[in-house]
Amino acid sequence: MKIDLNCDLGESFGAYTIGKDEEMMNYVTSVNIACGFHAGDPLVMKQTVSNAMKHGVKMGAHPGLPDIQGFGRRMMQISPEETYALIQYQIGALYAFIKAQGGKLSHVKPHGALYNMAAKDSKLAQAIAEAVYDLDPALTLFGLSQSELTRAGEKAGLRVAHEVFADRAYQSDGTLTPRSLPHAVLHDGDEVERQVLRMVEKQEVVSIDGKTVSIQADTICLHGDNEAALSLAKRLSEKLR
Amino acid sequence: MKIDLNCDLGESFGAYTIGKDEEMMNYVTSVNIACGFHAGDPLVMKQTVSNAMKHGVKMGAHPGLPDIQGFGRRMMQISPEETYALIQYQIGALYAFIKAQGGKLSHVKPHGALYNMAAKDSKLAQAIAEAVYDLDPALTLFGLSQSELTRAGEKAGLRVAHEVFADRAYQSDGTLTPRSLPHAVLHDGDEVERQVLRMVEKQEVVSIDGKTVSIQADTICLHGDNEAALSLAKRLSEKLR
Amino acid sequence: MKIDLNCDLGESFGAYTIGKDEEMMNYVTSVNIACGFHAGDPLVMKQTVSNAMKHGVKMGAHPGLPDIQGFGRRMMQISPEETYALIQYQIGALYAFIKAQGGKLSHVKPHGALYNMAAKDSKLAQAIAEAVYDLDPALTLFGLSQSELTRAGEKAGLRVAHEVFADRAYQSDGTLTPRSLPHAVLHDGDEVERQVLRMVEKQEVVSIDGKTVSIQADTICLHGDNEAALSLAKRLSEKLR
Amino acid sequence: MKIDLNCDLGESFGAYTIGKDEEMMNYVTSVNIACGFHAGDPLVMKQTVSNAMKHGVKMGAHPGLPDIQGFGRRMMQISPEETYALIQYQIGALYAFIKAQGGKLSHVKPHGALYNMAAKDSKLAQAIAEAVYDLDPALTLFGLSQSELTRAGEKAGLRVAHEVFADRAYQSDGTLTPRSLPHAVLHDGDEVERQVLRMVEKQEVVSIDGKTVSIQADTICLHGDNEAALSLAKRLSEKLR
Repeated sequence: MKIDLNCDLGESFGAYTIGKDEEMMNYVTSVNIACGFHAGDPLVMKQTVSNAMKHGVKMGAHPGLPDIQGFGRRMMQISPEETYALIQYQIGALYAFIKAQGGKLSHVKPHGALYNMAAKDSKLAQAIAEAVYDLDPALTLFGLSQSELTRAGEKAGLRVAHEVFADRAYQSDGTLTPRSLPHAVLHDGDEVERQVLRMVEKQEVVSIDGKTVSIQADTICLHGDNEAALSLAKRLSEKLR
Repeated sequence: MKIDLNCDLGESFGAYTIGKDEEMMNYVTSVNIACGFHAGDPLVMKQTVSNAMKHGVKMGAHPGLPDIQGFGRRMMQISPEETYALIQYQIGALYAFIKAQGGKLSHVKPHGALYNMAAKDSKLAQAIAEAVYDLDPALTLFGLSQSELTRAGEKAGLRVAHEVFADRAYQSDGTLTPRSLPHAVLHDGDEVERQVLRMVEKQEVVSIDGKTVSIQADTICLHGDNEAALSLAKRLSEKLR
Repeated sequence: MKIDLNCDLGESFGAYTIGKDEEMMNYVTSVNIACGFHAGDPLVMKQTVSNAMKHGVKMGAHPGLPDIQGFGRRMMQISPEETYALIQYQIGALYAFIKAQGGKLSHVKPHGALYNMAAKDSKLAQAIAEAVYDLDPALTLFGLSQSELTRAGEKAGLRVAHEVFADRAYQSDGTLTPRSLPHAVLHDGDEVERQVLRMVEKQEVVSIDGKTVSIQADTICLHGDNEAALSLAKRLSEKLR
Repeated sequence: MKIDLNCDLGESFGAYTIGKDEEMMNYVTSVNIACGFHAGDPLVMKQTVSNAMKHGVKMGAHPGLPDIQGFGRRMMQISPEETYALIQYQIGALYAFIKAQGGKLSHVKPHGALYNMAAKDSKLAQAIAEAVYDLDPALTLFGLSQSELTRAGEKAGLRVAHEVFADRAYQSDGTLTPRSLPHAVLHDGDEVERQVLRMVEKQEVVSIDGKTVSIQADTICLHGDNEAALSLAKRLSEKLR
């Protein structure tokens, strides 16, 4: 059994530097690289691709809504047609750096509000899946486990990775507990480890109100924003190995 | 003898619509499509690629400085390293739409201030040429005839198209008369036609101060901003055929 | 009886020019000037203020969501706290041009999606009303007639102008028929004139499904996007005089 | 004798947080608040004004070029007319937060590339000075000591504060050694202290090539980017008291 660990990175922007990107690349097997719409810029993307290739991790595009100030986390009313276009735009932009450096683009994972909207909105999900498929049917689509996005990806004929979150609480319907609610993020390392092992071994998670929810854990999302996140990533990476 | 006629287009942005794009596609053989940094947006790019494919014109990326408000026409201090990155980013973004629609990206022409800066600054020119070459050595680089940019393209091993301008006055050193000076733009159709024919037949142009300047006319830039430009494009297109 | 006629303008952006601003200033008594977040830029704002002062029309700020590409028409998830801040920011920016030119800022009218969201969302409406009041309690707040926004303005202690739309169809709950539905915009001049006269004389409007809806018509919004809109504005302006 | 110590701050942007703003407010007497063009956003500006008022420091606008990605540090070709407009826009935006919170705007200091360009370009300097004067002649203009900007401010009739830099090396013409050159920034605390005391007591500085250059030290710029800068600010603040 092999579990993919992924992390969003390449989120620095101009003079603004965030994320422990290089350290995280030691603990994950896939990275999702911001494409300049919600974070990242051309120089950061080029450098992130270069680092990812040195670490031998799989590279994915991490397209987001056009909203750097909101870090792509604010929901925005966006048509399926525009979504299709901004997905292709961002994948293409990242692809250029990967191709120029002799690498391979392996997957696509929408970011933030776009990810959450596509988990529930089947039209948006379909637009994303088709944008990816039409551009390159060999790409893998990452989406929230058993969501509209994974369904749309499967329907479009893409390989799909169902994603689970190591340190996020779940609702009983399998969606993530919104960050605006209390206890949305798990901070205790032991609890996170228990949740991850249960996800991996039993393909299930205990929701915030105590229900057992079946999920599919093809890839686990880790965070690398701060020292605590980093050491948690290290711990999970070693545990799962 | 075959002369390429090119036009910059796809410059609409959101609710802002400019350019007679569809009409111009009847008169030119190559189009340079804005890539979202100085003009254009993902939806506009997707649609422009679709139109260009219907008209069977060659498609090129038209990357610019990151400055929509200035339409990429304001010079900006930009390092060769950043230039390299923003060129690859923009080409990749356009490439995605072309690939998804089954077309072929044929060339790259920097826009506005970036084009003018690269005509004179050898380091910037080299960064652009290498960005294009590293991404795809089969692409043709468009640059001001006999400028640093065409030199850099040739040195990098790219196919290069020396570009001349139908309706712009020339300085005696072969550069364009800046738009800030009087008579920078030719408005008389007969004069434009004479200039174009001389360029094509004799590979020379008469500068604004009366000198004969040798140029290389591989491709001629036309404009499609308004009705007058459009009928001039039609006239030249018919004349050259 | 005196009826205020208002128009949104100053919506050009860099090289992108839209709107018949100068002509419209002949037909309206108030103008709502875009503040650079959804349209407009500093130069356009300065020039628009100068023109408005020449025409002697009342000047208002027209703040919008931070989304030039979407022209402020896409709904965006935005907290009341951020809304408060972006309202004050944009009013202040416009105020600077007006103060420097010796004019007077008279009102504030939110734009597009922000206007529509604030018509229904009482928290957003309150944030807008308080932002305006805290900055200058002498400003008038324009909002959709009998909406959450006008209620919030009245509660905050502001003078409020209930706004009606000359050429838009109404739902039976007094909101505008969304542009995505058929017949949302009235194109027939006679019909528009009838609707306006009824609004002014009887303070009521007939909804798209035939109900008589009571409204309060303090100010009427006209459009100036094209020749047809312009001549309609002229006609209404003359009729109401 | 009283020496003003100033610091640029309010430079966070959305999810991107930088600067030790609150700590710095203990050591300086004036703060220059970013206005959203090169850094800062409406929420950050509102909060920074609130903090500055709590600390009782003088508040100034810190307008920059429209280039968040470049942090306003990239030179950009910008006309005097546009400069005039973007200065008024940004001052007005900040002024709104200050007025709404019952504070007082005391000064204006251009940022980064705009500051450097205005130190040498008399037309740009004049545009800035007139923009400030026309908006509010009671504002103080901060500019590089004995530069085109301070000259323009004096000529326009503004109160002017000649600014010197605690930790920057000087050229023999009184300009700052560009950051691209070695030794542009002084890192040794003793050296910085010596330079500051000499500036304050003798109104002179020793240039990087050993010349004594006369300057006028009305206000001293400190930095608050990191721990080292912070403790230097503390040290200088105590020394000068």
